[in-house]
Amino acid sequence: MAASDKPTVLIPGPVEFDDAVLGAMSHPSESHVGGAFVNIFGETLSLLRKLFISEDPSAQPLVVSGSGTLGWDFVAANLIEPKEDVLVLHTGYFADSFASCIATYGGVPTQLKNPAGVGSRPTYEQIEQALKEKKYKAITITHTDTSTGVLNDIKAISEVVRRVSPETLIVVDGVCSVGCEEIRFDDWGLDCVVTASQKAIGVPAGLSICYLSGRAVRTFEERKTAPGSYFASFANWLPIMRNYEAKKPSYFATPSPQLVRALHTSLLQILSIPLEERFAAHKTASQKVKNAIAELGLKQLAQDPSQAANGMTAVYFPEGVTAQDVLPKLLGRGVVFAGGLHKEIATKYFRFGHMGVSVMNKDLGHIDKGINALKEALSESGYNGPK
Amino acid sequence: MAASDKPTVLIPGPVEFDDAVLGAMSHPSESHVGGAFVNIFGETLSLLRKLFISEDPSAQPLVVSGSGTLGWDFVAANLIEPKEDVLVLHTGYFADSFASCIATYGGVPTQLKNPAGVGSRPTYEQIEQALKEKKYKAITITHTDTSTGVLNDIKAISEVVRRVSPETLIVVDGVCSVGCEEIRFDDWGLDCVVTASQKAIGVPAGLSICYLSGRAVRTFEERKTAPGSYFASFANWLPIMRNYEAKKPSYFATPSPQLVRALHTSLLQILSIPLEERFAAHKTASQKVKNAIAELGLKQLAQDPSQAANGMTAVYFPEGVTAQDVLPKLLGRGVVFAGGLHKEIATKYFRFGHMGVSVMNKDLGHIDKGINALKEALSESGYNGPK
Repeated sequence: MAASDKPTVLIPGPVEFDDAVLGAMSHPSESHVGGAFVNIFGETLSLLRKLFISEDPSAQPLVVSGSGTLGWDFVAANLIEPKEDVLVLHTGYFADSFASCIATYGGVPTQLKNPAGVGSRPTYEQIEQALKEKKYKAITITHTDTSTGVLNDIKAISEVVRRVSPETLIVVDGVCSVGCEEIRFDDWGLDCVVTASQKAIGVPAGLSICYLSGRAVRTFEERKTAPGSYFASFANWLPIMRNYEAKKPSYFATPSPQLVRALHTSLLQILSIPLEERFAAHKTASQKVKNAIAELGLKQLAQDPSQAANGMTAVYFPEGVTAQDVLPKLLGRGVVFAGGLHKEIATKYFRFGHMGVSVMNKDLGHIDKGINALKEALSESGYNGPK
Repeated sequence: MAASDKPTVLIPGPVEFDDAVLGAMSHPSESHVGGAFVNIFGETLSLLRKLFISEDPSAQPLVVSGSGTLGWDFVAANLIEPKEDVLVLHTGYFADSFASCIATYGGVPTQLKNPAGVGSRPTYEQIEQALKEKKYKAITITHTDTSTGVLNDIKAISEVVRRVSPETLIVVDGVCSVGCEEIRFDDWGLDCVVTASQKAIGVPAGLSICYLSGRAVRTFEERKTAPGSYFASFANWLPIMRNYEAKKPSYFATPSPQLVRALHTSLLQILSIPLEERFAAHKTASQKVKNAIAELGLKQLAQDPSQAANGMTAVYFPEGVTAQDVLPKLLGRGVVFAGGLHKEIATKYFRFGHMGVSVMNKDLGHIDKGINALKEALSESGYNGPK
């Protein structure tokens, strides 16, 4: 299929990819320990430091073949020891899964539920109270909850944690936020951000990316028990990542040269302009989508507009209109949106992703295309906006 | 770099890739739960049944983003319960690592060492005696040991296991064998084969592939303890794989559409001729390499020619010649070989991979190119064959 004929993918990941990034995916075969690839991998790790706005040399990036989900195993098997308590901020689907992952490795997750239900997030007061009640080894925060489009303010939460329970590690699930939401890893005192390649980083799925503070590395190194995973063990990966960044060949498991080259290509593009511009562009595009949603009389899942993500929008269908009805009509107009994911209401809403080249390359016209297709599809389904 | 200028990669993985496979790697973005991709993923799983020469409907293929190493976690976290004994046949580097993975999840590995050291493999008598001494939940066999080029006869070992300890699960590490060595999964009574995309399957690195017997699936389903991993848990993946093969969208973690399409492309190519022809072609190419090695007066690591792999050859450098000397000379001639991996003798040998398109597409001339470059490089280093 020619790229121009294909539908535009506006889901909260995988996103649309730049041609140069897709081109890197077909890079001819090379040795994973050969000089050319080792240099590229090493540079890629150094570029990740810039993406996370981090200059602390004791911080450590990791790039491993896997899905974003593997990032939870990195956290649960390496930073948490059996029987240690973890406070999991609940904003939807992903908190349940992260909690389940933590429990798999023997940690004890306590979910702090969002008080106003779907579309809300735990309050700072709740977080402060929970941290005062029990000593938590770590707190986990889903930065953008891809199931609801709710954004957590990780800077503000970090301030609460540092004030009330400074020894608690601050862990961020940034799968749907890294590359489109502001993250100042060092400045905000974060300890671990896990993410994946296929969202705002703009690279096909297949890479799990993790960024650790020096404190997180030390926490791992001072574990009393062995890591609970083999493939996800930092004991296996940290020496490899340090060697690659020092441009020395090293082997634990075979990396994917094609995916790593695609990541390298995308990071060079991302970092070719100030990150502030990138964050601002995602806010502008997001606001455009959210304004159009409001004009159509539709309601976001995010209850408070100031708590909505900038890389995606989750929207309730109007009454009488269903996913089975609208999503094919959108596809007929060359646009792919995602259905619902939050199990309580999965059939009642849809998700519009606005990340990466679809936002940064305005010539593509993806955002307008998505908004127009939505208006037309709803109209064809008999819905023409607020009465 | 134009593909024609690039050096030919003749290492035991990643191998050289067919142009159509590399083309699939740049497939434009698509939804991982969209109809087109779900069909491709479903077909890919069905094609894997053919690759494993398996018709048992209770058998189960899995394809997950990750390195081949992740396959060990699949085995250790799902098929073995804590405190259960596992017999690990030792032929080199990979047995040590697999044993370490098993121990991570609480299994108790017993390595059965190769009696004649590097380049040998455990004997059937040793295996039979070990199985009679203790009840093992599983036996693990590295089909082709990529660190030594030694091939295990998994059919013969399976016969011993079925006779002496029929309840023991037969687990094969086929990372360097699936796609080039004969494997008749059903006929030989295997229970689990783990492999990866980047070797004889001919797809860039990034996919962990696992094939389970109905008995292995039941063993998992009847576990008394929860699986030890989250990302590698069959509880999370089996429903997803069954849904994809039934062409139903399903989500646990985002798969890589590009890598799965590349796998689909390669499997269609592989299965376009009888597998017997593919196995025979690898034997012929391997014999050509091994004959050339013998004519040069060089010695393989594999002590017995009948126990040498058909997808790679591990060869000692002649006396006075080093890796630092020869590998750059090979690269100068446009050929990439791999250095040693077995820790006892890593600097003393090299590895020549002969798998995939380099074997099947004779027009490429890769095998002759490799042999000629080796002769010339050794000659330039002052070695001109047996005196």
